[in-house]
Amino acid sequence: MKNFLSVNDVTDVDALISKALYIKSNPLAFNTKGFGKRMGCIFMNPSMRTRLSTQIAAKNLGLDVIILHAGSEGWAFEFQDGAVMNGTTVEHIKDAARVLGTYFDILAIRAFPVFKDRDEDYSEQVIKQFIKYSGKPVISLESSTLHPLQSFADAITIQENMPQSYKPKVVLTWAPHIKSIPHCVANSFAQWMSNWDKVDLTITHPVGYELSEQFTKGAIINHNQLDALKDADFVYVKNWSSFEDYGAVKCIDETWMLKNAHLSHTNHAKVMHCLPVRRNIELSDEILDGEYSLVTKQAENRIWAVQAIISEILEG
Amino acid sequence: MKNFLSVNDVTDVDALISKALYIKSNPLAFNTKGFGKRMGCIFMNPSMRTRLSTQIAAKNLGLDVIILHAGSEGWAFEFQDGAVMNGTTVEHIKDAARVLGTYFDILAIRAFPVFKDRDEDYSEQVIKQFIKYSGKPVISLESSTLHPLQSFADAITIQENMPQSYKPKVVLTWAPHIKSIPHCVANSFAQWMSNWDKVDLTITHPVGYELSEQFTKGAIINHNQLDALKDADFVYVKNWSSFEDYGAVKCIDETWMLKNAHLSHTNHAKVMHCLPVRRNIELSDEILDGEYSLVTKQAENRIWAVQAIISEILEG
Amino acid sequence: MKNFLSVNDVTDVDALISKALYIKSNPLAFNTKGFGKRMGCIFMNPSMRTRLSTQIAAKNLGLDVIILHAGSEGWAFEFQDGAVMNGTTVEHIKDAARVLGTYFDILAIRAFPVFKDRDEDYSEQVIKQFIKYSGKPVISLESSTLHPLQSFADAITIQENMPQSYKPKVVLTWAPHIKSIPHCVANSFAQWMSNWDKVDLTITHPVGYELSEQFTKGAIINHNQLDALKDADFVYVKNWSSFEDYGAVKCIDETWMLKNAHLSHTNHAKVMHCLPVRRNIELSDEILDGEYSLVTKQAENRIWAVQAIISEILEG
Repeated sequence: MKNFLSVNDVTDVDALISKALYIKSNPLAFNTKGFGKRMGCIFMNPSMRTRLSTQIAAKNLGLDVIILHAGSEGWAFEFQDGAVMNGTTVEHIKDAARVLGTYFDILAIRAFPVFKDRDEDYSEQVIKQFIKYSGKPVISLESSTLHPLQSFADAITIQENMPQSYKPKVVLTWAPHIKSIPHCVANSFAQWMSNWDKVDLTITHPVGYELSEQFTKGAIINHNQLDALKDADFVYVKNWSSFEDYGAVKCIDETWMLKNAHLSHTNHAKVMHCLPVRRNIELSDEILDGEYSLVTKQAENRIWAVQAIISEILEG
Repeated sequence: MKNFLSVNDVTDVDALISKALYIKSNPLAFNTKGFGKRMGCIFMNPSMRTRLSTQIAAKNLGLDVIILHAGSEGWAFEFQDGAVMNGTTVEHIKDAARVLGTYFDILAIRAFPVFKDRDEDYSEQVIKQFIKYSGKPVISLESSTLHPLQSFADAITIQENMPQSYKPKVVLTWAPHIKSIPHCVANSFAQWMSNWDKVDLTITHPVGYELSEQFTKGAIINHNQLDALKDADFVYVKNWSSFEDYGAVKCIDETWMLKNAHLSHTNHAKVMHCLPVRRNIELSDEILDGEYSLVTKQAENRIWAVQAIISEILEG
Repeated sequence: MKNFLSVNDVTDVDALISKALYIKSNPLAFNTKGFGKRMGCIFMNPSMRTRLSTQIAAKNLGLDVIILHAGSEGWAFEFQDGAVMNGTTVEHIKDAARVLGTYFDILAIRAFPVFKDRDEDYSEQVIKQFIKYSGKPVISLESSTLHPLQSFADAITIQENMPQSYKPKVVLTWAPHIKSIPHCVANSFAQWMSNWDKVDLTITHPVGYELSEQFTKGAIINHNQLDALKDADFVYVKNWSSFEDYGAVKCIDETWMLKNAHLSHTNHAKVMHCLPVRRNIELSDEILDGEYSLVTKQAENRIWAVQAIISEILEG
């Protein structure tokens, strides 16, 4: 694997899940693979699970890892080509990426969307510039449009909890939120499920919250949540803002927040969320603290997901 | 030892001090005890000595340690059960602690009091929720009401400087400050000295600064500072805000700031402070830079205190 | 080497460059030299290259390193002797340095100038107090007036790209900027070039931007940029604010920003800058992205520069 920006960088989703599950049962199986190598993790935005799981995975592989919080440590990057830098940015990504390419063997980058210009966010120029100018393999720790490590961990979690005798129905449902939230987790989950032949995907959301078709193609889309939830084996809960009216919060219809009553329509569905979750806004206490929640297991699987990916990158 | 929240988690204070002093003379004595284990240190508030000493101690034990500055890295936790999270908090402690419990073998937590509701601060719900939801051993790096690693380092320092022929008189004296300061260090020092049969404790402070009796029981309390200092062997200097009028700064009587003249009433007393100290507000330059100050030694002993505690936790 | 604050701590510049180049070709040559030792890096100001290169170098030497961002982690130090600390500072450097001296074998400090009082900044009291009170070797990671690790990396880079048959002409040119920028890089570069007998130094800047003579003595100073650039082999580009009218931005004459046209006057000069650089303000895209730019190589050489210095300090 050269870079890891999306499921499109994965040759065989099933084989990758198997690798992650093998690592989960043998965390130190490849503990010298990273010896003498260094990975730089550059965070433009806050992180808890992503940063911790990456540090743990790197350590398990014998890889040195150094964290740079570009935001909170006061380093604002410029991303526009040709910019006259007379504003608040202090260093162009070109220069930073070239330098980081000499310092590290692998770069891992988190850069959320800016929500000013949809085309710009969706062009993924930030992470692409890191690849172009660093000359080193790049792992996405969540970019403007996708969060592939999360989706990979989600797929691992579904695999672990999957019925043996039939193809499960997976439902991605929009949930309310008070803020304008990126599409990354939803886009990426839709893309992974569509690229994995072990599940069937249905997406449900209020009218106005259509995701970009480039990620949802192949999925059933249903604007009636209760109808969509019928016979679901897994329900993935996530808020996202509008794609059409880019970044807008169109409605915060509270009835879309999942409670136990919603689950009665499902096939004893397991409930998933990437965390952090705003309790009793996005998802109810009764579900999060109930027996069907997989959210902690998803978060734990972040370790094995990123460890499998770093391992693939180290193998080239 | 299962958790370390206060001196109540210590079976034998003398034995623990001996262990710390043994480690001090042999820092690498147990340098494989932590092998293959990971500790997560979660700081809700700033730290210098606590963070550095913990990292050093963990390294000496062969334990991996990862630091998370929940505050400055932009992660605000919710602590209220049942909260409808439509405000500024982004993740409930329940969810975070459950995840951190899957990432780490030991958690170490710093969470200062909020000073909004005394009962809530004094219930220590923050650190108790980390224990409850993580399912892993928790070490307090200073909680709402106590700072047990500081007090343990203080006890080690007193032991090292103690007279051989008699039981020393230890005086905890209130000192002026310009801000509303937690009670943690004072509560915890009082509690440790009362649970250690090698010293006699006197507490002195202006009227209105009475500490909670749950921590001061067994100590002599005297509102006349000079009288209290008489024949003291150790003087522990610390500001704290009011317990009764919770968090209030009742007076800032400058005469309570220790100068050399105060020490003439003592038995050549050694002077202690946990640092950081506001010079010439809490404590005078002449004492801090003089021969009787133990403050640097106390800070150094933070390493051996936390190393002894982690070692105990690793032993279960 | 006892401390590293400037080129004055270097006995033989050529020998030190050779050492760095040897390490560059054998990064792990001395990888047990730091075993069992600890270095504390204290950053009062933001850093990217300095922090990363120092962590990488320390790791290559087997040295433990712990980073403290005193600024962003909420720790404001007091530097005035005798201060009555009733303001925003929470700990005196005296107390912090004494403690850090017990925690670490080497301290590395970044503390930019305050720009309030020139004499105070130029007295370098901050870093001198760390030396005095910690009792441990101190490495400057950029102080009020100098950035010696940058200049050492610059000298290494010049050595690597130097003509064999003659003594090259090195020109340090002032460049426009929108902010009040410290003199450190310019002072330090001038001082290193003047103390290194392999190059001739010319300095060019608009009238009003004279640097302190203590650092520029021995260099030719020419206020006509194009004339100064004539036959240059290396052009070092850097903004600095006024020394005379301390910290003032006297002019931002855009014609001083180097473009390819300026280079036509030179001897195919290589162009240098310490980074971060404000593109199209300090230096043009066409030069930074062109074949004569050495900026990425300078940044990479920061690793080998600091690794050579730490190695010297470890040797005492």
